[in-house]
Amino acid sequence: MKKILLALLLPIIIVSVTFASEEPKRKVWGTAALMVVVEREKGNVVVIDSIKHELLGRVEGLGNLRHATMVFSRDGRYAYVIGREGNLSKVDLIELKIAATAKTGENSIGVAISRDNKYIMVCNYQPGSVVILDSETLEKVKEIPAEADLPDGTKAASRTVGPLDTPDNLMVFGLMEGNSVWVVDMKKKDFPVIKKFKDVGDTPYDQLTTPDGRYYIVGLLNSDWMGVLDLWKLDEMKKIDVHERKEGLKKYGGDWKKVPVYHIPHLESWGISGDLAFLPAFGEKRVIVYNMRDWSLVKSIPIAGTGLFVVARPGGKEVWVDNVGAPGSPEERLIQVIDVETLEIKKTIDAGKGAMDPQFTPKGEAVYISVREENKVAVYDTDTYRLIKEIPVDKPSGIFCTDRTSKFGL
Amino acid sequence: MKKILLALLLPIIIVSVTFASEEPKRKVWGTAALMVVVEREKGNVVVIDSIKHELLGRVEGLGNLRHATMVFSRDGRYAYVIGREGNLSKVDLIELKIAATAKTGENSIGVAISRDNKYIMVCNYQPGSVVILDSETLEKVKEIPAEADLPDGTKAASRTVGPLDTPDNLMVFGLMEGNSVWVVDMKKKDFPVIKKFKDVGDTPYDQLTTPDGRYYIVGLLNSDWMGVLDLWKLDEMKKIDVHERKEGLKKYGGDWKKVPVYHIPHLESWGISGDLAFLPAFGEKRVIVYNMRDWSLVKSIPIAGTGLFVVARPGGKEVWVDNVGAPGSPEERLIQVIDVETLEIKKTIDAGKGAMDPQFTPKGEAVYISVREENKVAVYDTDTYRLIKEIPVDKPSGIFCTDRTSKFGL
Repeated sequence: MKKILLALLLPIIIVSVTFASEEPKRKVWGTAALMVVVEREKGNVVVIDSIKHELLGRVEGLGNLRHATMVFSRDGRYAYVIGREGNLSKVDLIELKIAATAKTGENSIGVAISRDNKYIMVCNYQPGSVVILDSETLEKVKEIPAEADLPDGTKAASRTVGPLDTPDNLMVFGLMEGNSVWVVDMKKKDFPVIKKFKDVGDTPYDQLTTPDGRYYIVGLLNSDWMGVLDLWKLDEMKKIDVHERKEGLKKYGGDWKKVPVYHIPHLESWGISGDLAFLPAFGEKRVIVYNMRDWSLVKSIPIAGTGLFVVARPGGKEVWVDNVGAPGSPEERLIQVIDVETLEIKKTIDAGKGAMDPQFTPKGEAVYISVREENKVAVYDTDTYRLIKEIPVDKPSGIFCTDRTSKFGL
Repeated sequence: MKKILLALLLPIIIVSVTFASEEPKRKVWGTAALMVVVEREKGNVVVIDSIKHELLGRVEGLGNLRHATMVFSRDGRYAYVIGREGNLSKVDLIELKIAATAKTGENSIGVAISRDNKYIMVCNYQPGSVVILDSETLEKVKEIPAEADLPDGTKAASRTVGPLDTPDNLMVFGLMEGNSVWVVDMKKKDFPVIKKFKDVGDTPYDQLTTPDGRYYIVGLLNSDWMGVLDLWKLDEMKKIDVHERKEGLKKYGGDWKKVPVYHIPHLESWGISGDLAFLPAFGEKRVIVYNMRDWSLVKSIPIAGTGLFVVARPGGKEVWVDNVGAPGSPEERLIQVIDVETLEIKKTIDAGKGAMDPQFTPKGEAVYISVREENKVAVYDTDTYRLIKEIPVDKPSGIFCTDRTSKFGL
């Protein structure tokens, strides 16, 4: 009888053990301040705890992540990562897995989430359009073709750039060939284009909103101005003269040699502190400072290379800038710190080969830097400028903190 | 034999079921935008998902929560709730339980978390001191007595108010009887008091920092000015004349009858939009608007009662204000919306008996209002001003969104 009993008991014991191991006590974490870093060659993202600077895990299989960017769901639970080949991935930052995917185009460039967390918008180079998807399922709910009037009178599909969300639940994006900026109302059924600003300048290529969500700024590849739109009024796209960004050569004398632009600087990476905006110059080794009250030029600050990311430290006392140069050049190792009071470089850090994209923890006591050619993310203490941690990351590029979720235009 | 077998099997079956339920597949959620609401009479907090406006759960047993306030850990995982009787609770917002507790004093008033997430500071009325605790364990690491020089030359312990964290990892707090503001360096071992500003005015009672973390402002119960300190320089506490807050009676003619102050308005609840600061007047039914550039008076806006919370909607286009009045009065049902462009009341909402503390979702598409005497939190759509949800909450008071974790001074 003992044997029979044991034979009968055994499967039950096994079942009970299986029950327990099927439901392990998962490690969970808060999602308000995760650092998410793109591994551009491998098509992964890594997730890092920004308190202890510890790697929480890695999510693989996101496709081609060159020039990838992302936005976050309201709760910080999901990253919506758009890869260059039009693969949108919804990444679960707690369970560390892909929760949903969608093909949004052949060549995609930007992504944003609507103010109410309900919809994702993707900007496409190919086909020239924006695509709106349900944020829960990634089901496509609308595609808006970006039809441009060309100078010869014909129409053609235009590449789109952006988009950006606004406090009124609008989405704003630029049409590169269309020389236009369009505004979509995300509150209304069918997502109508409610405004089309034409002839804003030659080739819109990037955009930002001011931290308070009030003003929209569009950068133009081939014009000497920027377009500025009051998002409260949506009335006109004002042209702000910023020719000094490209023509420092004449203005500041012989020091400003034109150098190759290895990466076109993004507007989203402008540093804003109080009234001052810090912008990388185009093809010149300097950061230019404007007073946003009247867009007057305040100063041009020499840096080691050409700036790509120009980022204000939370609290606004410093602006950190990376330096692009020829691959292997001395300058592309350097991250520089501008003192906002004196407008001088106060510190230069040799962070390693291919150092780029300084991104701060939410309150700025630490900064994360992608050191691309050394396969690591370096974490520095911002009070002492000392290295406090290195985290192995394969060919890191963009770094995104989930605190962006509560900020307009990010 | 069957019976024996069954008798033997039964406990095992029960055990296996217990195993399974011991490790259920826990529901987890992102923590970047949780709404945490105080149930003041019952000593609980409730946790609400601000995307779907759904109650996630309730944590009980936090003690006396009258005038309770809270701050959040960097990752949004924990709320540090300070109750009036000096009970500090670390509440896990995912597991919905109390993770740690500490007794910090006999009568406590405020709490803040250091910039690096390592320490909690509590301000005490009794004993007059501030207490610093390890944020992980809530172990007390330091108590700083708030010793005040009294006018008669003697010394006495002063009640303290605040504290606030700053971008340089300082903590700032006021001494009510000491008429002083002290600054503690949280980066240094032993947490030294590095600055003592004396004679700032009669009875500091509350404080705030501007959204960019640059300026500190202290309110004074019995002086006609506020103290303003540049946190970059820490050099002097400037006195800004705000006598219009209390003396509208003379300035604006007979309409401004003095009324009882049922709740002293908090500075932290000022609405700031662009250069404008919106402050509730003292004992008068109006909101007063200053231009923060030069602290000039812009306007005095009549409201239904006396304002307690004056809160800018994200994007800055509107300021929402509650109205305090005698219990059961018509005005204490009303939430009013000020248009920031016209500086006029554009909407009055009857939200129910004892409506107070409008708090926005991070991007402002919805607002949460505590309706104290109707045991509910009401959620309104801010575009249409329509009620979209009511959530049962027992005697709700303060509402706190976890997006505060990335903001200085909150």
